[in-house]
This record gives sequence, C-alpha cells and structure tokens, in this order.
Amino acid sequence: MKIYSKSKLNRVKRGHNRATYDVEKINSILDAGFIGYLGYVYEGKSITLPMAYGRKDNKIYLHGSQANRMLLALLDAKEMSMTVMHLDALVLARSGLHHSVNYRCATLFGSIRKLEDPREKELALFCFMEHMMKGRWDEIRSMHQEELDRTLVIEMTIETASAKIRDVGAEDEPEDYNLDVWAGLVPLKQIAEYPIPDEGLPQKMEIPKHVLDYYWENKQ
Amino acid sequence: MKIYSKSKLNRVKRGHNRATYDVEKINSILDAGFIGYLGYVYEGKSITLPMAYGRKDNKIYLHGSQANRMLLALLDAKEMSMTVMHLDALVLARSGLHHSVNYRCATLFGSIRKLEDPREKELALFCFMEHMMKGRWDEIRSMHQEELDRTLVIEMTIETASAKIRDVGAEDEPEDYNLDVWAGLVPLKQIAEYPIPDEGLPQKMEIPKHVLDYYWENKQ
Repeated sequence: MKIYSKSKLNRVKRGHNRATYDVEKINSILDAGFIGYLGYVYEGKSITLPMAYGRKDNKIYLHGSQANRMLLALLDAKEMSMTVMHLDALVLARSGLHHSVNYRCATLFGSIRKLEDPREKELALFCFMEHMMKGRWDEIRSMHQEELDRTLVIEMTIETASAKIRDVGAEDEPEDYNLDVWAGLVPLKQIAEYPIPDEGLPQKMEIPKHVLDYYWENKQ
Repeated sequence: MKIYSKSKLNRVKRGHNRATYDVEKINSILDAGFIGYLGYVYEGKSITLPMAYGRKDNKIYLHGSQANRMLLALLDAKEMSMTVMHLDALVLARSGLHHSVNYRCATLFGSIRKLEDPREKELALFCFMEHMMKGRWDEIRSMHQEELDRTLVIEMTIETASAKIRDVGAEDEPEDYNLDVWAGLVPLKQIAEYPIPDEGLPQKMEIPKHVLDYYWENKQ
C-alpha cells in the first residue's frame, strides 16, 4: 500500500481515527468527482473557488483563460492546495452535538507549473475531458491551434495529501440510546438526469453511446 | 432589490455577464445547501476545508470543537470568505473549449466573532440545525450545559458577496452548429434516499414527520 508521508501540513488533527493517507483511497475520492475547491492567497486574504479538474497518476490538471485571476495567482505562488468532498448522508443523532454528515473528503498539497508545450497541453485537456465524461473527446470537433494558445493549462504534482472518511451511523452518548428520539441516516447522492439535446441539433441526431453510458452510470 | 456593493474583493472578473450581487439571489443559493468551503491562511499557505453552516439574515453560523485548527485560525484573522456551489448540469458542446457546467456559486466575505453568551450560542446552533433539517431541533434531546461549553460557535457577518450563475445550454462557435456532434445538457442534482433507521432504535419507532418531509422534498 502506497501512502503519503505525514507532515505538519497534511496531518489530520481532529477526528484522526477517520483519516487516511492511502494513495489509492485518495485517488478514488478524486475520481468520484470532478469539481475541486482551490484556495489562494489574494492580498493576504484566502479566497476559495471551485474548479473542474482531471487526474492522471499523481498529476491534477486545471485550465482556464490566460487571464484567469486565480490561476495566475496560483502560478505566482508556485504551490496550491485542493479539496474535493462528496457528501454521502445526513447523520441524525439523538442529541444535537452528535449530528454529523457522512462524507469522503480529500485535501491535496503540491507544486504547480504552467504547461507550455502544445502536445503536453492537449494531453492534459484530453485527461481533463476523459475525467468529466469518458469517450467524449473522440466525438467532438478537434481543437484549433488558436484555442489551445489562449487556454492556460496548469499541472499540479501531488506532493502530499490526506483524506477523511466518515461512513458510520449515529454515535450517541450511551445514556441517550433509551430516549424516544429517532436516529439514523438520510443517504445523499449526486445523480444525473436524462440528457437534454441542444436546440440547435438536427432533429434526427440520437444521443450518443458515451453520453447514455454516463447517464446510466450516474442515474439513481 | 438589495444588492451588495462591489469592491476589488468581490467583483467578478471573468464571465461578469453571469455575475449577480443581488442579496436575495445569493441567499437562495446559501439556503439551497448547507456545506460551504472556507479558506484560511496557515503559515502563508491557503487551506480550504468544507464545513456545515446555517444562515439567518446576513449572519452565517459555524461551529466545531474548541480546539478546531481552522476555526481558531479564522478567529485570529477576524475575517473569512466562504464559497457555496451547486452543480446543476454538464454542458456538452461541439468543441472542447465550450464544454462547461451549469452551476450556482456564491462567495461571501465578512468579519467574524466568537459567540460567548450561552443564549446566543444556543440560538445559533438552533439556526444551524433548522438550516440542515427543519423541525429536528424540537425533537431531539436538549443540550447539556457542558456540551454547549465545549462547542465553539462562530458568527460571520456577511459584508459583501457575489455570485455566478450559469443556467443555459451549450454556446458553440457559429460555424460548429453544422457539425455532426451531439450537444446538450446532462442535468445533475443532489438527492436524498429513503432514511435508514439506526440499529440501536426500538423496532417500533416510526420515522418522524420532519425526517420524511425532508426525504419527500429532496428525493428525485
């Protein structure tokens, strides 16, 4: 089992019994979503913004306009952190204090660089799109050079990471189990609904297999 | 219409045609969820962590253990930002560049203070729980003084904010509409599944109305 080494930065302080540093477990959290929350320091203040990402091995790919304030600030800082969380359930306990949520949350720390080589940039964007929807890249119009030029592509190398996972039921005070209070879980999940064709599409065009596959894998 | 004033901090730079500063619209984004992403500066680095919140008027309530590293760092900084996003659809375009997501995303900036008065703390925790599940507070065991004492409760006053909303279809290059490429939306949403009773519950206990109401409002 490969694990990330622990440092002051990534060591989980609160609820460390729920912590993991297992690379595979952390990758599975990253692969279950495609929106991460990035933090950057702007004039001494911390600002957090959501961004879509792709992952390949220990690399995370982000992209945006060449004028994107956050990406430029990240490049100046040369390092970043990113947090990805999936909400799995409301945990309803018998007392207020023990209410909680079940979740899988990974936080990554790493160095970043701007990709300049067009081939590297295109591979990163391919990885990004495959991460969002497998099989789509091959079905769309290929990229114009000018589009590639005006896209800023950033590669993060994950240097260390940690995750916290809570996946159990309510944990009440021993004396509260006799109370006449309902406790349990309300599972939560993100689902996909049936694809809606663009109005500009020719009537006859069928929904392609890669889009239907995504729907079938993500519907309730 | 009440709107937040624009400053260097909250003015949306990219995609400003999707920006709003409307207080009611921003509140509706906040009320549609209960997990926010907070950023704080730790030894010069920006760290982002998800936290549950409650809202009342222009106040946001957070809580945690008295030893919570993030909450203590926020109190030191005396200010914070929080981002809340809902993912509404994948936007599948004819070219890679125009792939996007539909979303509602609010970012808040404000000052924070620690609540010390037990009555204020309890009201904040009531607001927090009502925000998570309406009607639950009155059905659970009331709080012990010792539990209240060991809970750190923080009140953020929203001073300024902005939101970005994307809720339209694919927007392709004019010449790409003739291509034989399927485009459209795949709607995404977070849903609740049927409540799962805790194993420690007496067999006879029925799921209470406030929990079933939550399920019916949030099921697909």
